[in-house]
Amino acid sequence: MKGNMQDWAPNVADIIEHASQQFPKREVISKTQSGELHRTNFRRVCARAKKLASALERDGYKKGDILGTLALNGYRHLEIYYGISGMGCITHTLNFRLHPDQAVYIINHAQDKVIFCELAFVTILEAIQDKLPFLEKVIILCGQEELPKTPLKNIISYEQYIELGDVDYKWPKMQQNDACALCYTSGTTGDPKGVLYSHSSQVIHAKAGSFALELSGRDSMLIVVPMFHVCAWGLPYIAPMLGSKLVFPGMHMDGRSLFDLIDKEQVTLAFGVPTVWMQLLNYCRENKKTLSCVNKTVVGGAALSLPILKEFEEKHNVTVIHAWGMTEMSPVGTTNLETTEMSTMTKDKKYAIKLKQGKPCYGVQLKIVSDTGVELPRDGIARGHLMVRGPWILERYFKETKKAVDSLGWFDTGDIATLDEDGYMTIVDRAKDVVKSGGEWISSIDLENAAYEHPDIIEACVVGVPHSKWDERPLLFVVLKAGKSIEKQEIKEFLSLKVAKWWIPDDIIFVEELPHGATGKLQKFGLRREYSNHYSC
Amino acid sequence: MKGNMQDWAPNVADIIEHASQQFPKREVISKTQSGELHRTNFRRVCARAKKLASALERDGYKKGDILGTLALNGYRHLEIYYGISGMGCITHTLNFRLHPDQAVYIINHAQDKVIFCELAFVTILEAIQDKLPFLEKVIILCGQEELPKTPLKNIISYEQYIELGDVDYKWPKMQQNDACALCYTSGTTGDPKGVLYSHSSQVIHAKAGSFALELSGRDSMLIVVPMFHVCAWGLPYIAPMLGSKLVFPGMHMDGRSLFDLIDKEQVTLAFGVPTVWMQLLNYCRENKKTLSCVNKTVVGGAALSLPILKEFEEKHNVTVIHAWGMTEMSPVGTTNLETTEMSTMTKDKKYAIKLKQGKPCYGVQLKIVSDTGVELPRDGIARGHLMVRGPWILERYFKETKKAVDSLGWFDTGDIATLDEDGYMTIVDRAKDVVKSGGEWISSIDLENAAYEHPDIIEACVVGVPHSKWDERPLLFVVLKAGKSIEKQEIKEFLSLKVAKWWIPDDIIFVEELPHGATGKLQKFGLRREYSNHYSC
Repeated sequence: MKGNMQDWAPNVADIIEHASQQFPKREVISKTQSGELHRTNFRRVCARAKKLASALERDGYKKGDILGTLALNGYRHLEIYYGISGMGCITHTLNFRLHPDQAVYIINHAQDKVIFCELAFVTILEAIQDKLPFLEKVIILCGQEELPKTPLKNIISYEQYIELGDVDYKWPKMQQNDACALCYTSGTTGDPKGVLYSHSSQVIHAKAGSFALELSGRDSMLIVVPMFHVCAWGLPYIAPMLGSKLVFPGMHMDGRSLFDLIDKEQVTLAFGVPTVWMQLLNYCRENKKTLSCVNKTVVGGAALSLPILKEFEEKHNVTVIHAWGMTEMSPVGTTNLETTEMSTMTKDKKYAIKLKQGKPCYGVQLKIVSDTGVELPRDGIARGHLMVRGPWILERYFKETKKAVDSLGWFDTGDIATLDEDGYMTIVDRAKDVVKSGGEWISSIDLENAAYEHPDIIEACVVGVPHSKWDERPLLFVVLKAGKSIEKQEIKEFLSLKVAKWWIPDDIIFVEELPHGATGKLQKFGLRREYSNHYSC
Repeated sequence: MKGNMQDWAPNVADIIEHASQQFPKREVISKTQSGELHRTNFRRVCARAKKLASALERDGYKKGDILGTLALNGYRHLEIYYGISGMGCITHTLNFRLHPDQAVYIINHAQDKVIFCELAFVTILEAIQDKLPFLEKVIILCGQEELPKTPLKNIISYEQYIELGDVDYKWPKMQQNDACALCYTSGTTGDPKGVLYSHSSQVIHAKAGSFALELSGRDSMLIVVPMFHVCAWGLPYIAPMLGSKLVFPGMHMDGRSLFDLIDKEQVTLAFGVPTVWMQLLNYCRENKKTLSCVNKTVVGGAALSLPILKEFEEKHNVTVIHAWGMTEMSPVGTTNLETTEMSTMTKDKKYAIKLKQGKPCYGVQLKIVSDTGVELPRDGIARGHLMVRGPWILERYFKETKKAVDSLGWFDTGDIATLDEDGYMTIVDRAKDVVKSGGEWISSIDLENAAYEHPDIIEACVVGVPHSKWDERPLLFVVLKAGKSIEKQEIKEFLSLKVAKWWIPDDIIFVEELPHGATGKLQKFGLRREYSNHYSC
């Protein structure tokens, strides 16, 4: 028997329409390239998104066309999210830090017909436009009078493009699972892969994210996490859903700029990756400032470290929420919220729990399995391949015919993790990075974290290198602080205080710098290849 | 183009399974008939729900069968919610305050095959069992040794029924829109009508409700609103979704019992209707007690009044959230959350806003229309028929072939309301209760509220009575405090200080009591019929 409730095939534009009606005056603040603050609100964002949607429609773009963005976090990017997807096209956010070859690959793979390009990124497109056969038009995010001199063809300013758009445009109804947005994984090996989100999955994810992160319409949210990366964790949908104020830093991501923006716009909640928070905390420490208006910060994209956690909570009285997810998961998978139990714990015990990746929010299911696919116990000890399932997790990569999930719908995250009796998930390592030594697993992340505790080490990287006796053994690369020098043996002795003896790397290599990908993640595959014979010579 | 994310057809049992894994030890407290507290947790609730589901399956009950509950708020009722719906049958909650004829009508209309009956309600079934041809079995909510002597046929105790159930039962996968739960409207006119919720609508509603009411896993929730009534506003789904502690008062709803329970279980959040809160507040006032652990209370089911709002906020420092909805809406439609703006308002201004019904949570769309269906402005002044649309709003009543919504999916709530520029909705009156005088509308609710302010009046009721010149004119019924007597003229003069002159009722009738329906609402239709010639004689 079927229920008698209404069918539901949402259009994400319903969200900005909702905000325009329910929270018309809630502000959207953007730091522009010049450093000035641009102020708008949800009513105006919605009106301009409608103008854009109608302009695109009039221009002949149709449901299913893919249109790219090469843009910073700001109000125009927000309007574009809704304008493109709301009229039925697909918003494809491009990472402006990509290598040009990767950008060409991705733009052509997606067959982007239009790219909305930030003024600051015009040179990126200039260099590759000849290699983009599908690209028909470049809409530059500025007024007509600000258009730069550029060899780019078929350009128009955003403001001119939307000028004659229709502010009374009616958003079309969507069908179930109509595509909405496209994002490519950073791809440390092989070609980048696309994840094609639907309107439904974006809406369901946003609703889940709002309670998995305990967000509220009273929040003033600083969105440091880039809008090109997994739709900024869904926040451009969540904030208008709840009526939260949005604060976009644009390109001004240094500690001082962030602090000033937080202070001026009374930010209560900030979202970002650990490296950005380190800069902010450094600035506060050096200038004896306190983040007095901030209540919470959400840290994701890389594991939270104890020093950052402690500094936020103890020096700034800011509650830290550790979150984990991935592009394939829209991205929110687990969050580590404050619990009733934590209020009576010792700090050390509480911090130990808060460093875990957290619990899955309702809608996401997790399990860990052995190499042969057998489910492992949720005892906090067994380490296995982390498998996920749920409505905002991909089924297949874009343009792939083969499913990315098994017959029961489980997606292999590529992570090795533990699950404990209280429901907490802890990432042990990436499956491809874990060092398989004598049938046991050594976590490269744990070893790196141990090395980081040495005062002279500023960066560390562990890879597994083939070994005749043990299959693999760890090899440690370290970057030392300027002017410092230490012996390998000293590092080994330091590590032996932190980890099991058989984990100690057989060798240590000092390097000037380590390779990072476009989203800042360590890229280990090159090192692994280059040093594959290191233990067999 | 379709998105590439996973399909999703939830089973509500996923929620209790989630809670069992993520919040296994979170408590579920139930006050039993004897007054003692029963303590269990989500892991045990889930295990027992599985035993029930497997017992029902073994007993031959199949997907789509409708099984009734005649039960109080407590842990067994919670297990039954999941046990019945989770295995594919439909949970039909029965109001134990119904007139026996209505109960017979509803049970037979639904064709309930089983009724799960509270020990205290066995006599209700005894009186009507002979008129229930579809009823196969009565499962009494007690241990086998507690079974009462009763002429009821085919009875078994709940504990015996689930004893041999399978704790490792696997919840079946549901198909999109499979039916989950059934609830009948109280029906002040005509036969009660059923609303058949689906698994998807219940899950979507619960997720929306959790952020529309700003609920958290740290909350200890007192569920005063009955589980027979619109699934207790979705709270039996929301709490395990978030990991919130649940506190059920059973039949102990007087002020003292509620206060003691709140205090003992450190309730932070309480849900209920105004009449129950009045008893609690009276108790606190008379005994000089303060609700120190409570942060928030959600008031719905009837309009919030200023005295209750003020007493909660000023005497007890409890934030009041006014909520509005209906059985046809699962039920949450609008909520009135604290906003950033309220923090700088005068108390009077803030209270004036908080007495409104609130803003629709994302997913619910509202509009107001004239008698001829023309949409009216959102200016806070225009009054129109309130129309709603969304995924947890019904499309048709149970067993009806005709849709209950118009061609665009709008459902007429039967209420007259205003919408303002900031998105707030205010209920003016029920459409059938509004008094149509000379082409203008007089709100019976506003008139009643004005009468309530007279110190000698304890209840008031206004109906529109046919009138030769004005179409209708208001007629006021009042119940005076014991031992008091006032003149009609005095009441009219009192009212003239509060409302427009042309609103003053042409006549006033003193009565000993007023008629109420099973859910406590005033039943005006009888009065309207009885007095239909009052102004034309």
